[in-house]
Amino acid sequence: MPSISIKGKSMPESPIRKLVPYAENAKKKGIEVFHLNIGQPDIKTPDCALKAIKNNTIEVLSYSRSEGSEEYRQKIADYYSKKNINVTANDIIVTTGGSEALLFALGSITDPGDEIIIPEPFYANYNGFSTASGVNIVPVISKIEDNFALPPIEAFEKLISPKTKAILICNPGNPTGYLYSKEEIQKLAAIVKKHDIFLIADEVYREFVYDNAQHQSVLSDFGLENNAIIIDSVSKRYSMCGARIGCLVSKNKDVIATALKFAQARLSPPTFAQIASEAALETPQSYFDEVIVEYKDRRDTLINELAKIEGVKVAVPKGAFYCVAELPVDNADTFAQWMLEDFSLDNKTVMVAPAAGFYSTKGFGTNQVRIAYVLKKEDLIKSVEILKAAIKKYNTI
Amino acid sequence: MPSISIKGKSMPESPIRKLVPYAENAKKKGIEVFHLNIGQPDIKTPDCALKAIKNNTIEVLSYSRSEGSEEYRQKIADYYSKKNINVTANDIIVTTGGSEALLFALGSITDPGDEIIIPEPFYANYNGFSTASGVNIVPVISKIEDNFALPPIEAFEKLISPKTKAILICNPGNPTGYLYSKEEIQKLAAIVKKHDIFLIADEVYREFVYDNAQHQSVLSDFGLENNAIIIDSVSKRYSMCGARIGCLVSKNKDVIATALKFAQARLSPPTFAQIASEAALETPQSYFDEVIVEYKDRRDTLINELAKIEGVKVAVPKGAFYCVAELPVDNADTFAQWMLEDFSLDNKTVMVAPAAGFYSTKGFGTNQVRIAYVLKKEDLIKSVEILKAAIKKYNTI
Repeated sequence: MPSISIKGKSMPESPIRKLVPYAENAKKKGIEVFHLNIGQPDIKTPDCALKAIKNNTIEVLSYSRSEGSEEYRQKIADYYSKKNINVTANDIIVTTGGSEALLFALGSITDPGDEIIIPEPFYANYNGFSTASGVNIVPVISKIEDNFALPPIEAFEKLISPKTKAILICNPGNPTGYLYSKEEIQKLAAIVKKHDIFLIADEVYREFVYDNAQHQSVLSDFGLENNAIIIDSVSKRYSMCGARIGCLVSKNKDVIATALKFAQARLSPPTFAQIASEAALETPQSYFDEVIVEYKDRRDTLINELAKIEGVKVAVPKGAFYCVAELPVDNADTFAQWMLEDFSLDNKTVMVAPAAGFYSTKGFGTNQVRIAYVLKKEDLIKSVEILKAAIKKYNTI
Repeated sequence: MPSISIKGKSMPESPIRKLVPYAENAKKKGIEVFHLNIGQPDIKTPDCALKAIKNNTIEVLSYSRSEGSEEYRQKIADYYSKKNINVTANDIIVTTGGSEALLFALGSITDPGDEIIIPEPFYANYNGFSTASGVNIVPVISKIEDNFALPPIEAFEKLISPKTKAILICNPGNPTGYLYSKEEIQKLAAIVKKHDIFLIADEVYREFVYDNAQHQSVLSDFGLENNAIIIDSVSKRYSMCGARIGCLVSKNKDVIATALKFAQARLSPPTFAQIASEAALETPQSYFDEVIVEYKDRRDTLINELAKIEGVKVAVPKGAFYCVAELPVDNADTFAQWMLEDFSLDNKTVMVAPAAGFYSTKGFGTNQVRIAYVLKKEDLIKSVEILKAAIKKYNTI
């Protein structure tokens, strides 16, 4: 049957998910697969969130307000005030995940053909959302040797054109784990104000910072009331990836008014998930303290174990739960697929995300992978052992 | 504080929701507002769906598969087979509401600047989704005098250009309530096959047909395996608007493969809502039988009462739960706002959706409104009484 030719806007494939069929085949062969490819934590969702769902008394599961319920937005504003982010309920639009928040942000501030500048490597799905929004990504390279710190601000300056509408950062970074310093955010604040463009900050990993570092939100003390947009999500904070609740936050009233039109077109965010997310705000600090200790331990384990493999270079993450590692293989994409198709150790193998998909510049990151340290310590140790054996074997065939 | 100028792709405002602030002000003044503006039924969600949520045993609320869980898609395919729609789980992508299904469909088959032809009046948010997707809507007028039947196929033929990628219909229609006949779908099938374009059918009101009429799905017996895309949703079928679960269905493998990339970019549909939606498929036929009797009764009540108002013209709906009425007022937009701001009868007023927002052609539908018959009979009778008094008073001021 011949098919109508469709172009689908050249939507890119997700490097996080494209190897899924190979992983499923491996499982069918009885091989256990350690999933280090996706930021799906094994941490339990807070009880208060799960209880709220079980105890709900809904009889008619109706639409909520397009911007999210008044009560929930008020509570989100209260949460932000504790983080030195001073916003009101009116500055917040509840979205279906951080994904939709970014789609609304891009939709609201750009027209087709406009550009946004992003330090690369960046969260791979930024490619998809930009394509879907008709926006072109202009990358600025950040380097593994610098732990993926902010590139010199002159590198951004050079790329700003009349089509540039925003600089987009992820802080702490997915996939890099880099945490921007106050000075780095100040530099970005100065350049966006100078050029009258936006600074969009994906801060979904805000709570995940280690070594007593301090997260710097773009809506804290940088004078960006007019220029900043925060992308947020409950997915990682409360290990509620399946809820699909996030939000867009801005003090710029035009941005909120425009984003609201996108929100109204899709009617409302999911109701059950809003109930869980509102309840999740009651999660005690002890939950986060334990989670951070656990992730720090995992990070240290992963980095230490990776460092023992000859030829592996790894950036030390200060936040989030990813790291980018350079492997002594010719092509990380082929290698990752091969691990799923043709390799196992003690009947176990590892799934990682090839990092090329996290770069916009062709040819970059081809021997890098993103590893999510979302599994318990002993599984991470075993995973690195498998990775080490796999590299050795791969390079002899 | 000066604001950065943003265009937001000229995203249109939702005519269904834009009067919400006026309704809220009316409520603050103690006035009861009958909401006939939005398709939010007052029907109870099936017990089986609500129970499944209360009895869920989730401990880590994780991402589901991007295309929706295997089990749920299999059960959706079983549901379709009972409707003479022969598809498999692989032809289905679970989405966050019908809204996202349409966004994925447009994203998958068009490039910016492409066109889709839609009989107008049409569901207002098609405007928003087209704008967000960079697609231009080319309208074909259907008339209230014909109950909004399919316009002559020659009218479509004339508008097809190399940029045309699809004809989009809503069947039964929102806002018209029109149900396309077998002959009308055959005509549409012939024209899309002749021109090698798609027929997208929004069939979310499939179950809501009256007078023993038969719904005709584009994936039934029209030979459209290659050309048809169904947009579907659980929102109305099970009175679960707040779930935000729908799906995209096509036998065209390129469409599914491309739509899957969009699905993967946003990671997954909401997990709790999928649990409820999967359970909702167990809803007994008696639930639907009762609902249809109730809606038919509401429709008859509404149409009969409206017919009693001098100067009101109304199309008789054969399906869904909306009707479009032409009112003897100069401007239905101004009138609808005035009813909320300055009018009440026995301390009650009515909110309707001005129909101009359901047309793409400027100047059409200015004295029409969409009325959703989603309230119980006595409220509908009272609503029309209010409407009648309001029209009378409005035309004397």
